[in-house]
Amino acid sequence: MSYTASVVGGSGFTGGELLRLLAGHPEFELVQATSRSKTKKTIGHSHPNLRHVDLRFSDPSELKSVDVLFAATPHGISMEQIDRFQDAADTVVDLSADFRLPTEELYDEYYDGHDRPELLEKAEYALPELNRENLPGADIIASGGCNATATIVGLLPLFEQDILSGDEQVVVDVKVGSSEGGAGGGEASSHPERSGVVRPYAPTGHRHEAEIEAFLGLDVSFTVHAVDMIRGASATCHIFPDEPVSKADLWKSYRGSYADEPFVELVAGGGGVYRYPEPKAVAGTNRAEVGFELDPANRRVVVFSAIDNMMKGSAGQAIHAANIALGIDETAGLEFTGLHPVGAP
Amino acid sequence: MSYTASVVGGSGFTGGELLRLLAGHPEFELVQATSRSKTKKTIGHSHPNLRHVDLRFSDPSELKSVDVLFAATPHGISMEQIDRFQDAADTVVDLSADFRLPTEELYDEYYDGHDRPELLEKAEYALPELNRENLPGADIIASGGCNATATIVGLLPLFEQDILSGDEQVVVDVKVGSSEGGAGGGEASSHPERSGVVRPYAPTGHRHEAEIEAFLGLDVSFTVHAVDMIRGASATCHIFPDEPVSKADLWKSYRGSYADEPFVELVAGGGGVYRYPEPKAVAGTNRAEVGFELDPANRRVVVFSAIDNMMKGSAGQAIHAANIALGIDETAGLEFTGLHPVGAP
Amino acid sequence: MSYTASVVGGSGFTGGELLRLLAGHPEFELVQATSRSKTKKTIGHSHPNLRHVDLRFSDPSELKSVDVLFAATPHGISMEQIDRFQDAADTVVDLSADFRLPTEELYDEYYDGHDRPELLEKAEYALPELNRENLPGADIIASGGCNATATIVGLLPLFEQDILSGDEQVVVDVKVGSSEGGAGGGEASSHPERSGVVRPYAPTGHRHEAEIEAFLGLDVSFTVHAVDMIRGASATCHIFPDEPVSKADLWKSYRGSYADEPFVELVAGGGGVYRYPEPKAVAGTNRAEVGFELDPANRRVVVFSAIDNMMKGSAGQAIHAANIALGIDETAGLEFTGLHPVGAP
Amino acid sequence: MSYTASVVGGSGFTGGELLRLLAGHPEFELVQATSRSKTKKTIGHSHPNLRHVDLRFSDPSELKSVDVLFAATPHGISMEQIDRFQDAADTVVDLSADFRLPTEELYDEYYDGHDRPELLEKAEYALPELNRENLPGADIIASGGCNATATIVGLLPLFEQDILSGDEQVVVDVKVGSSEGGAGGGEASSHPERSGVVRPYAPTGHRHEAEIEAFLGLDVSFTVHAVDMIRGASATCHIFPDEPVSKADLWKSYRGSYADEPFVELVAGGGGVYRYPEPKAVAGTNRAEVGFELDPANRRVVVFSAIDNMMKGSAGQAIHAANIALGIDETAGLEFTGLHPVGAP
Repeated sequence: MSYTASVVGGSGFTGGELLRLLAGHPEFELVQATSRSKTKKTIGHSHPNLRHVDLRFSDPSELKSVDVLFAATPHGISMEQIDRFQDAADTVVDLSADFRLPTEELYDEYYDGHDRPELLEKAEYALPELNRENLPGADIIASGGCNATATIVGLLPLFEQDILSGDEQVVVDVKVGSSEGGAGGGEASSHPERSGVVRPYAPTGHRHEAEIEAFLGLDVSFTVHAVDMIRGASATCHIFPDEPVSKADLWKSYRGSYADEPFVELVAGGGGVYRYPEPKAVAGTNRAEVGFELDPANRRVVVFSAIDNMMKGSAGQAIHAANIALGIDETAGLEFTGLHPVGAP
Repeated sequence: MSYTASVVGGSGFTGGELLRLLAGHPEFELVQATSRSKTKKTIGHSHPNLRHVDLRFSDPSELKSVDVLFAATPHGISMEQIDRFQDAADTVVDLSADFRLPTEELYDEYYDGHDRPELLEKAEYALPELNRENLPGADIIASGGCNATATIVGLLPLFEQDILSGDEQVVVDVKVGSSEGGAGGGEASSHPERSGVVRPYAPTGHRHEAEIEAFLGLDVSFTVHAVDMIRGASATCHIFPDEPVSKADLWKSYRGSYADEPFVELVAGGGGVYRYPEPKAVAGTNRAEVGFELDPANRRVVVFSAIDNMMKGSAGQAIHAANIALGIDETAGLEFTGLHPVGAP
Repeated sequence: MSYTASVVGGSGFTGGELLRLLAGHPEFELVQATSRSKTKKTIGHSHPNLRHVDLRFSDPSELKSVDVLFAATPHGISMEQIDRFQDAADTVVDLSADFRLPTEELYDEYYDGHDRPELLEKAEYALPELNRENLPGADIIASGGCNATATIVGLLPLFEQDILSGDEQVVVDVKVGSSEGGAGGGEASSHPERSGVVRPYAPTGHRHEAEIEAFLGLDVSFTVHAVDMIRGASATCHIFPDEPVSKADLWKSYRGSYADEPFVELVAGGGGVYRYPEPKAVAGTNRAEVGFELDPANRRVVVFSAIDNMMKGSAGQAIHAANIALGIDETAGLEFTGLHPVGAP
Repeated sequence: MSYTASVVGGSGFTGGELLRLLAGHPEFELVQATSRSKTKKTIGHSHPNLRHVDLRFSDPSELKSVDVLFAATPHGISMEQIDRFQDAADTVVDLSADFRLPTEELYDEYYDGHDRPELLEKAEYALPELNRENLPGADIIASGGCNATATIVGLLPLFEQDILSGDEQVVVDVKVGSSEGGAGGGEASSHPERSGVVRPYAPTGHRHEAEIEAFLGLDVSFTVHAVDMIRGASATCHIFPDEPVSKADLWKSYRGSYADEPFVELVAGGGGVYRYPEPKAVAGTNRAEVGFELDPANRRVVVFSAIDNMMKGSAGQAIHAANIALGIDETAGLEFTGLHPVGAP
């Protein structure tokens, strides 16, 4: 193993996913996991899939020196602790929103004041399909948000191939699983209340709009619904291009952007049960499925994308970015291909 | 009990729902249920909630004379059998799409040739909030489609109060339960494949667009996703009015249209877990929940509506229409208020 | 309406179920619902199915004088408040465990000390199929526990017909929904953790064993698993009678006990999809389904029973008992027959 | 890669699981997958998690010569085709029940006549924790049945440590997911009917009793319930040992048998949310979780075991057995540790 790694905030859901990936990664040695609330407990106590891993949570006040530190802390912690994180590791990969946006202005528009605005420019946003070239050697990497990732991966080829310019009206209707609410959960997240919902939990004004605006230059009309799954984000983008497009144009566009991407799969029509992107087909994997359909009567293009919010939308994307930053094979530790059949993972 | 009633096609899901409602209705006496495949079996054999009802399926070739005949047959059967149905009953309430559209032209655009086009004009579409006044004394009543009902109930006040004219771009993203696929089901509807999906099952070109076009005069950009519930249709309408509207305008509009409607409930924001329309809150009931939110940054209005596709979207709406047609209290037999908590009913 | 009624502890799940039933009951007028945490909020704020009911929670310190007071408070509250409850109402129906057991000794064996042991003898346990005759005119009625009810309803005929005496080894394996955990819920009840489980939550020593011991005279080997539903308790009883029994014996036994019971339905084999008792077939209803199968090779009888834990296992049984206590038609307000199809309600 | 492998019957659920495991196995090269119904279609057409694998189903009439042939065909096919299978491969691993039982007598007791009874003695049953020593060099390996595997893994240490002798009364109550019903599925397996059930689908007389009788020498009282999950089998064994046992005895027993087993994990009490074996904690993995609890009042031991029926209960166990048969590292290709949180996989 070539690099040492630690996870700060390891008892939460994304923290657990990082621990799972690092424990099985051929090039990382997991040397520390911290948790304020579960200090001294085994990581298997929080994450039953990791019972076989011999590691206990340590207190976040004592960080070991490692090559890469992954921070899976709530929004606001990383900007406060960034100096400590950088003292402990040459490469810091942050999974919160703290360093995702490029400017203080945009941050203030969607969030509530940044402690370290001078670092925003320095940190690299990590959605490798968008900006892989910025990641090698980066000091601070901000892994993209789940709903923004689903949306950007779906729309990116239309920008790269000039089918969209950013001035169009785009409606994005996202469906997400309950793991987006994080571990713990209150009344609204309890099983009796949360099961079976189609709940508009961010009817308008979701903060992930900021990332889409920052990196695609697009003001989206964004609505997020909670549905009955645990993992998964499915983005349906309704687009009205200025010029008519054909299916051939779309295929060319998406193949042009994604032919060589290891983690993007085009799924558009065809036969069988799984004809369009489907979150459960990518659960546990770092893959994004992307597909589309034409609606000529309304001059509409509908783009579908599906990810596992905890993988491609969080921990998987963070490992992918770290792999690139350190020059490791991009897919290392991210080879799991998912299950079939599988329920509402 | 004042009226006799029968159900043709009683072993399917909507047929069973009609049987349930009629068996408990204070003004209807259920005298016959037909089923080709389940002839002579008890209705409880198909519908375990009706085990206590002493009635067996009879062959559809022998229709009893009744006051009201409800047809819950697959699309295409009613237009073929309509003369027999009308011989058997003064009032025929059809739950299929056969008589929903007002003109043969529109029918041919979305379906495949009508056997009895001369009856299209004569049949009354039944979405009581839209056209209650046409129903008393109607001979043929065509109960509105589930996804169309969810959409029309959501948008109707905006047309009645001139916030929409029909020229606007409207995106409708519908989430539906597996009961829409009907009883039986093939591989795609099997539990292992259907559980946990966010499946674009009608990405574009859903036939219910026809009803929306016919009765609201609106060409919608319509997409339907299957999600993990059994009953329920949730429509999210993304609207971009030409003129800015305020929340007060919206409240005025929706209250103006629905203040006296017994089956529409406005649910828009407020506190608690259930802040917006939610299919599971109306499961088993004939209620539609309708709500909205403003997105000033995008000059967008988002309208949410939720129904039980088998009730307000099918059998409940049919009973509601029959109640009106016969001069019975509108809410008779439709008083069930739903359950809490409840899962993915 | 003949009687006034109130609900103490109305914001929880069983409290909400009582409110739903009383609001639709032909002989009760619901005049008060109390909640410490939700005082002054509408009951619809907690229970979205009751948004149409015009009633707000009041503080439990000010009880109105009513004919019947239903207490849906956590275990331990009723024994503390019983004098206040009895001052407010001639008939108190308690849904907690406080007054279920007949003796202080048994109470102390399973719980932690009783404040008012002298009332235990006076209170009447309410499982009408077992002891209907004790209920008319009772002052304090203790509605039976959900898992005990499922078990007792399944086994009672075997005792009444002397197939079991109480000395036999009986294994009871119960599967329950998440509503048994109550509203609110912590980490273990959160949707991501609780979905899809088969969780041994009471592997041994469940307190409901006490009711079974008290009223059947049987020491059961009792294990409870949480499974993925919200409402429902399904008890599977594995019995090894001393003497061989035939299917005819069993049918005679169960028909002998239950032929005239309005809320018990025998479901044993036969065709169709629903061949044995099934919680989802009784969701929202006060029915118990009971069935059985012979295993001659092992001299075993397997008895299945299914209830809605919030209805027959709690609020429905409480209303049933109050109906009997006051001389109202037993089924009044409990006529809902359930839904088909329905998911994991 | 050291060995070539093929899968006969690759479009079903267990066939797909074999394909997934072989495609990612370091020592096997997957060279053929057959399917009668899906010939020439890609394997990703049936299994969306395998879209990236470049392989099409071929007709089962043309078998390639390989080192190991895995048969995932319905019961009855392998005994008919066994000569063809053995012509094609030195090692045949059969996942059906055809070669699981050691004698024709036992086979006839539970099934309907065997075509090749002389092979029963020659074939090796594969539940490596039970009989690892028989597998190296075996020609025909019969991978153990899912529910039998869950039960045997739970009870084996009690036999190995003489806590059970086989004469005791043992009740086994199994809960299983819908994937046990296989791909396709009829009305009972359709999503609306199958969701949310606690369905006694094998109340008595399940065929897997035969394997338990054959390999533990125990006549079990066996009942199987279908519950709402896709993958998973959870066996709860209620045991009444002749002599009293302590928790220390049980720990010693289970540790004695399983200390060195790579795929068995002891989970008995302790803290956190996952205190007992849980199917969703092992979904996608080849692990079995085993735990227990004492019920001194009833002189009962309750043993819990949980597996993924498609992995440890089928395809995973088959690969495990093949690894042993060929002298490959036992855990090769079976390293996936499962996900947390995860729903009803």
